Amino acid sequence: MNRTLLRAGTLVDGGGRTRADLLMSDGKIVAIGDFSQMSTENVEVIDCTGLMVLPGGVDVHTHLDAPLMGTTTADDFATGTVAAAVGGTTTIVDFAMQIPGSTLTDSLQLHREKAKGKAAIDYGMHMCITDLYDGAIDELTEVRAEGVSSLKVFMAYRGTLMLHDGQLYDVLRGASRVGSQVCVHAENGDVIDRIAADLVAQGKTGPGYHEIARPPATEVEAVERAIRISRMADAPLYFVHLSTEGAVDAVGEARMAGWPVSAETCTHYLTLDRDIYDQPGFQPAKAVLTPPLRTFEHREALWRGLNSGVLSVVSSDHCPFCFEDKKRLSGDDFRAIPNGGPGVEHRMSVVYGKGVATGKLTIERFVELTSTIPAKQFGLFPRKGHLGIGADADVVLLDPDGTTLITADTQYQNMDYTLYEGWSLPGKITKVFARGRLVADKGRFVGTAGRGEYLHRDGL
Amino acid sequence: MNRTLLRAGTLVDGGGRTRADLLMSDGKIVAIGDFSQMSTENVEVIDCTGLMVLPGGVDVHTHLDAPLMGTTTADDFATGTVAAAVGGTTTIVDFAMQIPGSTLTDSLQLHREKAKGKAAIDYGMHMCITDLYDGAIDELTEVRAEGVSSLKVFMAYRGTLMLHDGQLYDVLRGASRVGSQVCVHAENGDVIDRIAADLVAQGKTGPGYHEIARPPATEVEAVERAIRISRMADAPLYFVHLSTEGAVDAVGEARMAGWPVSAETCTHYLTLDRDIYDQPGFQPAKAVLTPPLRTFEHREALWRGLNSGVLSVVSSDHCPFCFEDKKRLSGDDFRAIPNGGPGVEHRMSVVYGKGVATGKLTIERFVELTSTIPAKQFGLFPRKGHLGIGADADVVLLDPDGTTLITADTQYQNMDYTLYEGWSLPGKITKVFARGRLVADKGRFVGTAGRGEYLHRDGL
Amino acid sequence: MNRTLLRAGTLVDGGGRTRADLLMSDGKIVAIGDFSQMSTENVEVIDCTGLMVLPGGVDVHTHLDAPLMGTTTADDFATGTVAAAVGGTTTIVDFAMQIPGSTLTDSLQLHREKAKGKAAIDYGMHMCITDLYDGAIDELTEVRAEGVSSLKVFMAYRGTLMLHDGQLYDVLRGASRVGSQVCVHAENGDVIDRIAADLVAQGKTGPGYHEIARPPATEVEAVERAIRISRMADAPLYFVHLSTEGAVDAVGEARMAGWPVSAETCTHYLTLDRDIYDQPGFQPAKAVLTPPLRTFEHREALWRGLNSGVLSVVSSDHCPFCFEDKKRLSGDDFRAIPNGGPGVEHRMSVVYGKGVATGKLTIERFVELTSTIPAKQFGLFPRKGHLGIGADADVVLLDPDGTTLITADTQYQNMDYTLYEGWSLPGKITKVFARGRLVADKGRFVGTAGRGEYLHRDGL
Amino acid sequence: MNRTLLRAGTLVDGGGRTRADLLMSDGKIVAIGDFSQMSTENVEVIDCTGLMVLPGGVDVHTHLDAPLMGTTTADDFATGTVAAAVGGTTTIVDFAMQIPGSTLTDSLQLHREKAKGKAAIDYGMHMCITDLYDGAIDELTEVRAEGVSSLKVFMAYRGTLMLHDGQLYDVLRGASRVGSQVCVHAENGDVIDRIAADLVAQGKTGPGYHEIARPPATEVEAVERAIRISRMADAPLYFVHLSTEGAVDAVGEARMAGWPVSAETCTHYLTLDRDIYDQPGFQPAKAVLTPPLRTFEHREALWRGLNSGVLSVVSSDHCPFCFEDKKRLSGDDFRAIPNGGPGVEHRMSVVYGKGVATGKLTIERFVELTSTIPAKQFGLFPRKGHLGIGADADVVLLDPDGTTLITADTQYQNMDYTLYEGWSLPGKITKVFARGRLVADKGRFVGTAGRGEYLHRDGL
Repeated sequence: MNRTLLRAGTLVDGGGRTRADLLMSDGKIVAIGDFSQMSTENVEVIDCTGLMVLPGGVDVHTHLDAPLMGTTTADDFATGTVAAAVGGTTTIVDFAMQIPGSTLTDSLQLHREKAKGKAAIDYGMHMCITDLYDGAIDELTEVRAEGVSSLKVFMAYRGTLMLHDGQLYDVLRGASRVGSQVCVHAENGDVIDRIAADLVAQGKTGPGYHEIARPPATEVEAVERAIRISRMADAPLYFVHLSTEGAVDAVGEARMAGWPVSAETCTHYLTLDRDIYDQPGFQPAKAVLTPPLRTFEHREALWRGLNSGVLSVVSSDHCPFCFEDKKRLSGDDFRAIPNGGPGVEHRMSVVYGKGVATGKLTIERFVELTSTIPAKQFGLFPRKGHLGIGADADVVLLDPDGTTLITADTQYQNMDYTLYEGWSLPGKITKVFARGRLVADKGRFVGTAGRGEYLHRDGL
Repeated sequence: MNRTLLRAGTLVDGGGRTRADLLMSDGKIVAIGDFSQMSTENVEVIDCTGLMVLPGGVDVHTHLDAPLMGTTTADDFATGTVAAAVGGTTTIVDFAMQIPGSTLTDSLQLHREKAKGKAAIDYGMHMCITDLYDGAIDELTEVRAEGVSSLKVFMAYRGTLMLHDGQLYDVLRGASRVGSQVCVHAENGDVIDRIAADLVAQGKTGPGYHEIARPPATEVEAVERAIRISRMADAPLYFVHLSTEGAVDAVGEARMAGWPVSAETCTHYLTLDRDIYDQPGFQPAKAVLTPPLRTFEHREALWRGLNSGVLSVVSSDHCPFCFEDKKRLSGDDFRAIPNGGPGVEHRMSVVYGKGVATGKLTIERFVELTSTIPAKQFGLFPRKGHLGIGADADVVLLDPDGTTLITADTQYQNMDYTLYEGWSLPGKITKVFARGRLVADKGRFVGTAGRGEYLHRDGL
Repeated sequence: MNRTLLRAGTLVDGGGRTRADLLMSDGKIVAIGDFSQMSTENVEVIDCTGLMVLPGGVDVHTHLDAPLMGTTTADDFATGTVAAAVGGTTTIVDFAMQIPGSTLTDSLQLHREKAKGKAAIDYGMHMCITDLYDGAIDELTEVRAEGVSSLKVFMAYRGTLMLHDGQLYDVLRGASRVGSQVCVHAENGDVIDRIAADLVAQGKTGPGYHEIARPPATEVEAVERAIRISRMADAPLYFVHLSTEGAVDAVGEARMAGWPVSAETCTHYLTLDRDIYDQPGFQPAKAVLTPPLRTFEHREALWRGLNSGVLSVVSSDHCPFCFEDKKRLSGDDFRAIPNGGPGVEHRMSVVYGKGVATGKLTIERFVELTSTIPAKQFGLFPRKGHLGIGADADVVLLDPDGTTLITADTQYQNMDYTLYEGWSLPGKITKVFARGRLVADKGRFVGTAGRGEYLHRDGL
Repeated sequence: MNRTLLRAGTLVDGGGRTRADLLMSDGKIVAIGDFSQMSTENVEVIDCTGLMVLPGGVDVHTHLDAPLMGTTTADDFATGTVAAAVGGTTTIVDFAMQIPGSTLTDSLQLHREKAKGKAAIDYGMHMCITDLYDGAIDELTEVRAEGVSSLKVFMAYRGTLMLHDGQLYDVLRGASRVGSQVCVHAENGDVIDRIAADLVAQGKTGPGYHEIARPPATEVEAVERAIRISRMADAPLYFVHLSTEGAVDAVGEARMAGWPVSAETCTHYLTLDRDIYDQPGFQPAKAVLTPPLRTFEHREALWRGLNSGVLSVVSSDHCPFCFEDKKRLSGDDFRAIPNGGPGVEHRMSVVYGKGVATGKLTIERFVELTSTIPAKQFGLFPRKGHLGIGADADVVLLDPDGTTLITADTQYQNMDYTLYEGWSLPGKITKVFARGRLVADKGRFVGTAGRGEYLHRDGL
């Protein structure tokens, strides 16, 4: 029997902070209290004095080994989950892309194959629908039976990923019938394509124009539209990677009206500025993400949204393409640069350092946003995202007095850059436990590839 | 020299009411004042004591001789303009449809041919764009040179009329470059198609389901979206036939923000109830219009919008299909019923009777909504829509103490029904002058087919 | 018989511009048209080629000979109406203050006495209620019978002018019963008093602190509150001198909801910046007005409000106190400076020059805002504010190619300063007619003191 | 050593539900986990299988032994806290009224005297400020030092309780300086007084008119105003007893803007209808509460607000006056009826039965609203409102399969009526522990008067 006692740490969950001992046994949390009198025979005791004891991070937006924009993301389930674990994330929910010409279930099986035997931490999958062939809606039952209770559709990328509004309606109806929820990438792709074409026609082809082609209103419009469509379909809706003040406002109004609309934002929208697009040469390509980075006003609105409850999840949108590959694939047209960047490894540290340490977030809210709510939202709670009796012993020890230094050289992500290069952040994740086993220690991976299990998730 | 003196009527325009004489000469208004001392040699004098003297109606939304939904509208420029004239409308702006496989200019020429020698009153044309072929945007210069300074696009009817958002953006950009404005049919057609398909799949095929398939939110969403897109394109926008409270709210917010957004509603949305869709048999087909009729709350919001300035035009959306044809073409699927109904003949009488006579509108606002503002909006002012010196002598005499009775039997519209069957309304249009000539007298047409001229309209 | 023909000018009213001749006879407008063939015997003909012919200005917010803040305004009905006339304003509606300890009717009679035999142009009066003694509400009938169909109440200045919310409610109820309307000075005076006291306690006593003591929210809050109270009282409401974006938004929402709420702003809020409060010494006292001047963003919102229809009147709030008197009365406490400044003379020129000449307003809207709508709002239309047959021949000739230079030295206002010192503005008022008589010519007063008549105004 | 083990219950807090054992020792919670193997020597074991284990209720709005409207509330600290305990509430925060002519500190001492030796459960106090004498603001430091970190002011009841807006501003400024928060009774009392006077003048004196005199807009207006004032004062704000949809909207907008505004509603606004005011005779007097009960639409908005996070507390506003006393004091004027009703005993049961059992609230949210958030909001967390290690062992056992029957006959409240007479509700509170001691068992009080301690509360 594997038993570990985390002694005298400060346990944090959404409800508050408690100074207590926590006992893990056989991969589960089994007791919380004052166990100073307890016999410690056969128990590994770790002194957590001065440390925060948090539920392991849950990152519900990653793209590992994913075929996107004519190439494949740079991290597979091996490298990606190791990076996650080192960064304090003990659960991911990854996107299974529909393969062109292939069914949803076949595409899902393919993605599960890719993960098999590789993942260092537990993982679930969302199913992306990019081609609504006849029978696709009926197949949602089967997808759901596989433990995949969330679908994703795109309102952008006509010709490859985009569904039109009628198809979004169909997916919303079909999903809610089987107890699944729908995640939406909300950008008005058709307008973006026209703006981008105009830019290219004017010779504005450099990577920085990526941002000009995707003004905030393209996101806000799509968010408003998707909310209206979800109301007509009488189905809940989850927005991925919101980046704008207008989107926060629209979601906020919907929630105040009592509609089942939820939304996430990502690490980079909270902490990075659009200035990078003004940098010379090909540097801006590092931030060719969709949606793009925004200005200060939008960032402030996102932090406000996290605190007011309008936004309830911070994910990484880890979608890694190496800078060299971005260059190679771009040619002389920003539209050909693969959209995405790395993030799964640094999400917890960056949000803690820029959010909790600066006073923008309480640590309780940090735990909710990075762990508890994503677990609840995607059918993993109380097994994940929870420092409660009976939960998986996914636990992070964080030293508020430590420091985290981020560089591409030292990262586990299979990438030649990071958007946070050289950042030195208050707070240090010192140990990470996944189902009771130590998987990361002082920033080094000490776990086992392949120990991660596929998670059958609950539905609505 | 043709001179007519309208003596002692109450002249009405948007600014107010004035008791005065009005002198018309050679088709123009030449003097207003107290001409009781003037010699009346060679002047026809008409005593207008007790009558309201209004500028002739301007109806900017008609579909004459129009190829739509696999058939052709029932009124051509001959019958349609006679009906208009009898109803107090002395100017129309009709929609020239783009013919599939044909260019915009060719389609426009074709529609102008249809009008030639037939129209009893002056007319202009809008150009509908339903297929944005390569080069279409460049051709807008030519269209504009023909005096067509407004374009129309559809956000519904995929496969026949609809443009997608990127194309709407392109049209907005192109139009504003040449000084044209864009009129939008705002409904989310893709969602409507899916709701309709679901209804039919459930065996709900009767004509009343037409309304169920087009819930208010399909209009509101499209209005909000088009406003956002027009902002990105930095171009003005005009909404045709708004029917819902939400649409009024969205337009109102845009206008309060100072954006160049305008909107019309139609006679029937102001005065008719959705109850007709609950009638038995095929009766509901008479009201198979798009958007459909709505509930009381929406009607009240539309009247409120007319008074608050959010809505600035009342048009007829005269798009006549005979009841028998609707039946014949329907088969057993409401989706095949041609969408549209008659209205050009009764617009002025119905809005006066239900609006002015009931106290919902002042007569000054009535004149603005049915004549002055549409003339201004579409580049016809001050020639049309204006009781001013130098304006065309398009004048309507209205007896507030008279009564108008509407029946299909007695109408000039080439139709086997009217939506206002049997209505008896306060107010009676007694005489109508078009460019100084009497064209309607006590409800009888006394003008001349072919006297109507094509109107080259000004742009923005 | 006094007859004048204004030949070949461009007549402007809210509805549009018309090139025509205008004939005035016996103080009235009697004919408009092409009178080139008319005999001009006994008619004075004035060539108006190239000139705009406008209805005389109507300024509904002046304080002449008014007892305020322990002193009296510097212009009486003699000097004030001469200044108005020279500036193109042919009608004023002045505020009769309630005298402490005196009844409404007695106070009104007193104010009418002050005007008698002095006014150069026609004038009406509003009645200010500052002490709601028992029986005051009943007396509104009598006040109304005197042709005073508007009342004013203050939500600021506790102890001298302010009514509390319950009293505002009572006045609204009482006024609407007798067909009068209520004008509100909307500022949260109680909060202002506390902020001001805090400033003074900190030694911040200079005149520039006047503005700090009255932040925008003090106006916005009072506007929102008054709207709510007027809804409960089921009575219309008119806001004087709005200065903030938030107030425009609140009024706009009320109007879109169909509520009978109207609002004015003033010349200075549209054209002057709060920077003046940062000037050294006692200079800021010139702009010690209530509410104070605001920033650029607020000004832009006000112009937007004028165009969107949310704001419908531009008045002067002419409340003149000489700079020397402000100094003398101030002591060392900005709270003792009389609140107000001059403006009746330059309203038309400044709004034309900064609004019409710059393209911010059409000239049609300018006429509505400065003449037609105030006349309508306060029961003077169509006699005033109207270039129509039968209206008073109050006419302004404006040369768009001329220039207006403003200096304190050359002004008719009985003041030692103007807020527009040294401004050179496009547009020049060349002649002003009041009931058919020339009263100002090229900036010189040529009329007769005492010719102005008291105006019995219509009610709601 | 007093040790009790609650075995195998379902522990609930805001974050989730956990099946676990809970060990209480010496009045504290000391361990949570699976203690099936633990020795139970010297431990009382209570089988909680099938029961929900909740933190004891925290009711932050009670008026015990309170001098109000010329009389005194019917429950003192003895009867009131017994009723609370039986109903599952283990902590109250009661309002200390300022005594006319007395200082804040003296008034507070007086109220503390009233509680001494009587309370069966722990209690804190808010301080009501009803007369802002010179020096009152300075005295807030002393009040705060007494552990009273919240103040209450009234925007209604001119002449007895009401502060004007400037005074509210002063209190907000002063409170935030010392780390206290301000609770506001938000109704526009001045307008209410006028409406009420009008009603009485019309002979409408019966108790049902109480509601007519306090229309929803009187609350909404005051809420909007207080929010604006708190922004100017840069101080947080807490609204007591919100009852209307408009108030929820206003608070929601403020919170989405990131402003520190919080709000409670009460049991009766969530569950009772205004129909009671239409009952014959004096019955409506039972519901003469302020604000009054509202319609269905408002109730729905309140429930929505509880779920969307806009409202965060449900309190009782226990302000008991016997029906007989209401009658006696009323005379023939509803304005003389003491405003208030009982509720502390049934808050938990009614909100559970009408909220959780019907699916309107999750049980997690129920715990937050009735216990955790009020404890946090008022500086009592984590000692109160928390099932965490080290917290006071205030614990409620609730049997979801049980039934609660409410009648006046059987209640502990010192009242001759209850607003929930005859209600039979799903869910039954079976045992209540206060600091580890059983105080209520199957609806009978088994605790000790005087064991309750005064709580020094933390500030902001």
